[in-house]
Amino acid sequence: MALQDIIRTLIVETPSKPGNFAKVATAIGAAGGGIGDITTIKNGTLSTIRDISVNCESFEQLEQVIENVRALENVKIHAITDDVLKAHEGGKIQMKSRIDVRSLGDLQRIYTPGVASVCLDIQANPQKARYFTSIGNTVAIVTDGTAILGLGNIGPVAGMPVMEGKSVLFDQFAGISGVPILLDTSDPDAVVETVKHIHQGFGGILLEDIGSPHCFEIEERLKKELNIPVMHDDQHGTAVVTLASVLSACRSTGVDPKKAVIGQIGLGAAGLAICRMLMAYGVEEVYGIDRQVEALERLKGYGGQTLESLEKLMATCDIVVATTGVAGLIKPEMVRPGQIILALSNPNPEITPEDALAAGAAFAADGRSVNNALGFPGIFRGALNAGVSDISYPMLVAAARAIANHTKPGDLIPNPLDPTVHQVVARAVEQAAQE
Amino acid sequence: MALQDIIRTLIVETPSKPGNFAKVATAIGAAGGGIGDITTIKNGTLSTIRDISVNCESFEQLEQVIENVRALENVKIHAITDDVLKAHEGGKIQMKSRIDVRSLGDLQRIYTPGVASVCLDIQANPQKARYFTSIGNTVAIVTDGTAILGLGNIGPVAGMPVMEGKSVLFDQFAGISGVPILLDTSDPDAVVETVKHIHQGFGGILLEDIGSPHCFEIEERLKKELNIPVMHDDQHGTAVVTLASVLSACRSTGVDPKKAVIGQIGLGAAGLAICRMLMAYGVEEVYGIDRQVEALERLKGYGGQTLESLEKLMATCDIVVATTGVAGLIKPEMVRPGQIILALSNPNPEITPEDALAAGAAFAADGRSVNNALGFPGIFRGALNAGVSDISYPMLVAAARAIANHTKPGDLIPNPLDPTVHQVVARAVEQAAQE
Repeated sequence: MALQDIIRTLIVETPSKPGNFAKVATAIGAAGGGIGDITTIKNGTLSTIRDISVNCESFEQLEQVIENVRALENVKIHAITDDVLKAHEGGKIQMKSRIDVRSLGDLQRIYTPGVASVCLDIQANPQKARYFTSIGNTVAIVTDGTAILGLGNIGPVAGMPVMEGKSVLFDQFAGISGVPILLDTSDPDAVVETVKHIHQGFGGILLEDIGSPHCFEIEERLKKELNIPVMHDDQHGTAVVTLASVLSACRSTGVDPKKAVIGQIGLGAAGLAICRMLMAYGVEEVYGIDRQVEALERLKGYGGQTLESLEKLMATCDIVVATTGVAGLIKPEMVRPGQIILALSNPNPEITPEDALAAGAAFAADGRSVNNALGFPGIFRGALNAGVSDISYPMLVAAARAIANHTKPGDLIPNPLDPTVHQVVARAVEQAAQE
Repeated sequence: MALQDIIRTLIVETPSKPGNFAKVATAIGAAGGGIGDITTIKNGTLSTIRDISVNCESFEQLEQVIENVRALENVKIHAITDDVLKAHEGGKIQMKSRIDVRSLGDLQRIYTPGVASVCLDIQANPQKARYFTSIGNTVAIVTDGTAILGLGNIGPVAGMPVMEGKSVLFDQFAGISGVPILLDTSDPDAVVETVKHIHQGFGGILLEDIGSPHCFEIEERLKKELNIPVMHDDQHGTAVVTLASVLSACRSTGVDPKKAVIGQIGLGAAGLAICRMLMAYGVEEVYGIDRQVEALERLKGYGGQTLESLEKLMATCDIVVATTGVAGLIKPEMVRPGQIILALSNPNPEITPEDALAAGAAFAADGRSVNNALGFPGIFRGALNAGVSDISYPMLVAAARAIANHTKPGDLIPNPLDPTVHQVVARAVEQAAQE
């Protein structure tokens, strides 16, 4: 299935008789449109009005959906709204005061002259900045715009809606103040220098949608040179949620993940990090393949092993994870009976779950199931709570275990809107940090 | 009067009989303590409990205040709280989502996959970032911590409570998202380079508490090299409010400011900017003096004139503004009858208003009257609304006129908590920007 990133809301009136809404749903489905949230606006004796959210792959498909619904007898489309754009009007985030300033007394407390005493207190005891400023609860969301979602190098400004989205999730899932920082350079020296110059205002750095291979050098240098947690989400956030998915899939199929042979196809930012995460978890045999020699060398540098071909990997491994971006790379005839296959490339996976299962896989999933919104909020909440200067592998593995343990039987991962999952992750990370 | 920057709240119980609260107030005043907000917590038949906010210059004075109140018969202090510190717990600001994420549909709209369509829209039409991201409503509050309030070079982290205070005022007075950026360097090249590398995420740059003389080069270079408004508040924000004060004082005394001879004592960041603002307003004769030759040269570079001595300036000028930081610099015998004197140094002015008036001045004020919280929120609101790339002198002069016009007869400037003043300033700045 292609990425259905065109989302519109149709306001539809149907007769209040059983079977009429089903006709609308059928008409949408016949054009290939997906159906999201449905809200009943009016439930009258004669007619019912509903907001129906529709997801389409293309504007042509959207046109077809609309035409199909309009063709139905006694059904009216009153309006078609773009709620995605509406949600973005004026931006999705704003820096807000946590205090109401209503009197001159309030002003004196939060601004001059009162503020001077807090400044002097922090000057004398720098660690107090953690308690009397927002620094300890603020994470910079840093991007150079070179790898925004699957859209590629569209620049940091065009990528801002993604950064604001991360900030929204930080706020709603973990109570963290997430500040987007858009860099106009991708040069590792300039990126490291710039982030270093501004890092004192933040309790942590989330690197986001920075392309490969410069993301590796940037993250490594910042982790080494800064005394606050730094994490590249596309590497380690994704790897945490992938490890959680592997653990869930193993539980479903009765496989012991540490004893399984696991193969990673594609060693970009996510793929390499997944290998490292699996090894950190304790999987003894992890193999990776990639078309680029540098990528293979990078894996070996971290103690990973490689194989000579895709065919060999498919034949060798009990569990296969793919992050190549190449749709249909895995042919059904390569699938080994009983294999666990996570083909994670978006919008089109290396093999669809249906095809993999038909070819004999015991378990199969695609990238839609692996939502990295499950990882970063709780990981940073835990790291900030613990007050550590680094996010270590034991902390990341603890996050993955917590996600897997919180998954309902039969699911691959929890619903990211379940607020308890982020608390559970934060607690696990904080505990691991203190051990 | 010295800076009363120690603020505590006393919870005091007195008998419910007339005259008892007056005794408490007298006891506080006898120790030299100032009284701020008073809130009645309980008004019983026998006794009354009040929160009394007390401002002191020193901890010794605070002790004396407490001792004096405790010595009163039938009066009890139940607790002494530090509401300033309490207001700072966890920081004063937080990046918040403007949208509730309650369903997977919400998540799809504000994050993947829906967000992709907004990103592509901005990539194709970059000016849309102004509408569909928070960039156009966000101002970076940039400091290197070298001139925090009157406290000097205490570093950016110790200065953070001031930056957060600015952010609070941006939010409450102008609905602007203010993001503190703490720089670990004061080198103009590094500061300019760093701000340039991150500027795309912001609609404007407020430079704050950056020391002199490096603040001049930094502001000039950033104004030249960036296509968004840049303003150093300690220069131009202060100068706007000072010009407004001069206009009010002239109105009170019937002086025509453009025809008056005005002298500025001290040509640091604020002093030089005040001279430039007065000239921009149209004052024909503006003289400045300073002990440093470089400061005099800087003024001449902007077309200003200098005089050979303080005595000469005091003898020549109808209006005198002082920002030297030197308490008592202006001797009563220097004051010319009918002069307007704004001695703005905090905590101790060059001459107290009382002494200046006693020496024959027609009008006198000190720095407590000139609150720069009146300037920057409305100035940036107006500039962002107009969508201009620069804050020009006509815009700043318009802001000063608006503040002066909004001042009640007899006052020097309006109450910064009056929300209409910021709207009035914003409208004036927006209008001037469009002319």
